[in-house]
Amino acid sequence: MRHLEGAYALIFKSLHYPNELIACKRGSPLLLGVKELNEEFNSGPTFHDSKFLSNNDHPKELFLSSDAHAIVEHTKKVLVIEDGEVVHLKDGNVSILKFDNDKGRHGGSLSRPASVQRALSVLEMEVEQINKGNYEHYMQKEIHEQPESLKTTMSGRLIRGGSCKAKTVLLGGLKDHFKTIRRSRRIVFIGCGTSYNAALAARPILEELSGVPVTMEIASDLLDRQGPIYREDTAVFVSQSGETADTLHALEYALENGALCVGITNTVGSAIARHTHCGVHINAGAEIGVASTKAYTSQIVVMAMLALAIGGDAISSQTRREAIIDGLFDLPNKVREVLKLDQEMKDLAKLLIAEQSLLVFGRGYNYATALEGALKVKEVALMHSEGMLAGEMKHGPLALVDENLTIIVIATRDSCFSKQQSVIQQLHARKGRLIVMCSKGDAVSACPGGFGRVIEVPQVEDCLQPVINIVPLQLLAYHLTVLRGYNVDQPRNLAKSVTTQ
Amino acid sequence: MRHLEGAYALIFKSLHYPNELIACKRGSPLLLGVKELNEEFNSGPTFHDSKFLSNNDHPKELFLSSDAHAIVEHTKKVLVIEDGEVVHLKDGNVSILKFDNDKGRHGGSLSRPASVQRALSVLEMEVEQINKGNYEHYMQKEIHEQPESLKTTMSGRLIRGGSCKAKTVLLGGLKDHFKTIRRSRRIVFIGCGTSYNAALAARPILEELSGVPVTMEIASDLLDRQGPIYREDTAVFVSQSGETADTLHALEYALENGALCVGITNTVGSAIARHTHCGVHINAGAEIGVASTKAYTSQIVVMAMLALAIGGDAISSQTRREAIIDGLFDLPNKVREVLKLDQEMKDLAKLLIAEQSLLVFGRGYNYATALEGALKVKEVALMHSEGMLAGEMKHGPLALVDENLTIIVIATRDSCFSKQQSVIQQLHARKGRLIVMCSKGDAVSACPGGFGRVIEVPQVEDCLQPVINIVPLQLLAYHLTVLRGYNVDQPRNLAKSVTTQ
Repeated sequence: MRHLEGAYALIFKSLHYPNELIACKRGSPLLLGVKELNEEFNSGPTFHDSKFLSNNDHPKELFLSSDAHAIVEHTKKVLVIEDGEVVHLKDGNVSILKFDNDKGRHGGSLSRPASVQRALSVLEMEVEQINKGNYEHYMQKEIHEQPESLKTTMSGRLIRGGSCKAKTVLLGGLKDHFKTIRRSRRIVFIGCGTSYNAALAARPILEELSGVPVTMEIASDLLDRQGPIYREDTAVFVSQSGETADTLHALEYALENGALCVGITNTVGSAIARHTHCGVHINAGAEIGVASTKAYTSQIVVMAMLALAIGGDAISSQTRREAIIDGLFDLPNKVREVLKLDQEMKDLAKLLIAEQSLLVFGRGYNYATALEGALKVKEVALMHSEGMLAGEMKHGPLALVDENLTIIVIATRDSCFSKQQSVIQQLHARKGRLIVMCSKGDAVSACPGGFGRVIEVPQVEDCLQPVINIVPLQLLAYHLTVLRGYNVDQPRNLAKSVTTQ
Repeated sequence: MRHLEGAYALIFKSLHYPNELIACKRGSPLLLGVKELNEEFNSGPTFHDSKFLSNNDHPKELFLSSDAHAIVEHTKKVLVIEDGEVVHLKDGNVSILKFDNDKGRHGGSLSRPASVQRALSVLEMEVEQINKGNYEHYMQKEIHEQPESLKTTMSGRLIRGGSCKAKTVLLGGLKDHFKTIRRSRRIVFIGCGTSYNAALAARPILEELSGVPVTMEIASDLLDRQGPIYREDTAVFVSQSGETADTLHALEYALENGALCVGITNTVGSAIARHTHCGVHINAGAEIGVASTKAYTSQIVVMAMLALAIGGDAISSQTRREAIIDGLFDLPNKVREVLKLDQEMKDLAKLLIAEQSLLVFGRGYNYATALEGALKVKEVALMHSEGMLAGEMKHGPLALVDENLTIIVIATRDSCFSKQQSVIQQLHARKGRLIVMCSKGDAVSACPGGFGRVIEVPQVEDCLQPVINIVPLQLLAYHLTVLRGYNVDQPRNLAKSVTTQ
């Protein structure tokens, strides 16, 4: 370990040492699962006893994994291995040695690793969560369970108000920090891939309700640039797994620079959850499909609630906030409604099955929807799709448009609608094969000549519309993948949590 | 005009009014060119006389155009029509009426437009600039004249220093504002298309030397979101033409919100140059090709000089700044050197002629190069190319990679080089068809197995490397376009200056 560079989690087994196993890690996650075989010992809180692990009286099975999902069907008792620790399993005995990194690195006396005692923790995860149920694929299941996952995300956090109480939002993990956040110079959203897109979707409403400028940073780009981050900044780290390597490194960087660090993850006890000053769990339930779906919508909802909470003290926006809260209460129903487009999206997928390229145009609240929709098609259906800001159309992308190019335009009702109408007209004038997503009953305004195909989605409060609009695109990506014969849940070349840089 | 909405520039001619022409505008640019036919009247400064236009004694020809380039071959004397003005040409007579917008709009008395007197100005542009010379296309000419255009851009602005004087940068148009800029809360770069990419390329060095956080905004997105801009912000507007509609609207928005507004344009007297508080002209000379090439590199150089000037007071970065200034002096030579890749890029274009898709990966200083290189290929060669942040590869794009996909990776030497080596290895492991751009003599480190094709470019100071690295991609886009038989200088569906939203 003194010689290795970079992030790793390793397990060693040797012919020369039968019945022994050595595991160690730095940067990447590693869990040790412990299953007691003798159930009668299982009743008490024995596993809280730090001596339990090295006590060989209790017969047990041990599991090593980088991801809790692989362990939970065997046991919920885990030990989260920390950086620099070495786990030694021998004849059913577990000993943990702490490796003092700095000493070795600076060429001082190479002291022997010291033995440490660690207590187990319990995974808050149910085995049912990792079953596919009646669905063929995890991605399909996770798309369709979004009404429920969103409900769980909001559960206990939305206050309905009453005759003398205002509608409001409660985010317990952040309540001591709102004053600081409101006074920040900037709020910096930091994430990768889908998590970045979710933050982008929530950015306009956070800017509107807080008045604080929101800067978007892709974690790896911030690190490459070593961009300025200061004490007056609030840095919000978004990651489903809470273990994304780039986001985690960006967190270390922001902590060194003194920023207030807020975590938004789906995984209790993950590295990002542990190392941020405060945060919110999205509680979307385990997400197994590599392509993130329900975590994306729950992330947006959590960040919308964050915006409501930060802006919660302003009288001028109270009506707006209450409308959004009402919208949140009704959101699971609207998602259930939009999921009825399943068959329609399957039909559309059949038409697009042989396409080489796909463009997705969005703007305003739905710029993120365009990026995320294109990312889904790219990562599972392996089609070169690109999400674009509709406002940039004339600065290059329009050149690509001809009668062979399929283009999805998101044009649900909001303050940008008339600009999107003009975009649609111009794409139509260049003979692009248009698929227009518009609000229910709006087909005639969005596609005046009846050209192109229309996807009608229920209308919700403008800042929540991205939660609705992504669903048909998730369904489209799913069906395209199945029709093209690719693996939905384990797309080529990709991993669920990107725990290396 | 009282009834029209949006931006326009219109000319009216009627059968019922022979020998008359009416022109009016709002938002979009409109110029009236005036050519005196009697040369003896041309010697004095007669055109400064505001009565000159309505004086019918001097025989003259009149030209109306939205762009100075169309007029300059006939005359250099122009009148820049302002918003709300109506130009009336009758029997060689010119009268200008000012239309009081607000009065009409608020339903007050519809007063008649008042007659105004305006003086002509002289275009600072040479006819030679709009000739192709020995080149077949403007784009080709403009790529190859970059050593000269960069020299003009830097001319008089770099101080070589001496025995007792430090090397430094002079930007006269900004000198009264540096104190304010250094104290800003944020520097916000605002632009569209290529200008946005140029700002992105300059962002890291500006952050490094100023320590001020730099936020990137695509102009249309800022407007769609109505994002927060305040008095403590410095907003920098980047536009080659200085007339880009979205950027201009964003400028109005930033002015309303009290930000210090800095313009970076290539066009003296353009709307952005006129309405910003201060600014820098890039002096790249007229750019006629719709796909911007020499303006891009000059924009980067101007913004690098801006970074040097803003950070000019810090002792800690003096060595770094002097190295960059030395690099700037030598930059035209290095660009001349990289232009020798012309034939190599033509050969490469022959190989890529039938490709459907192209990905370009970059990071750090060269994230912008990836976006801009892909944009060039997209807009002129009409190939679906996409620029990507290499750090995001594992968060989706990697799924697309197989033995059929051509990928350009920019991996010139800088602090991100080892990360790019790892990206190249992983793309190679997925059998992607790689084209690696690396520093001269670095082929073996960048492509250890000798796989893939290598483009070797001269190495310069890291923050100036984007100026070098874009050149081969410009050449590639150019040759691809010619080989594919498309119009290089007027790409399908695109206009040089996007003067409408």
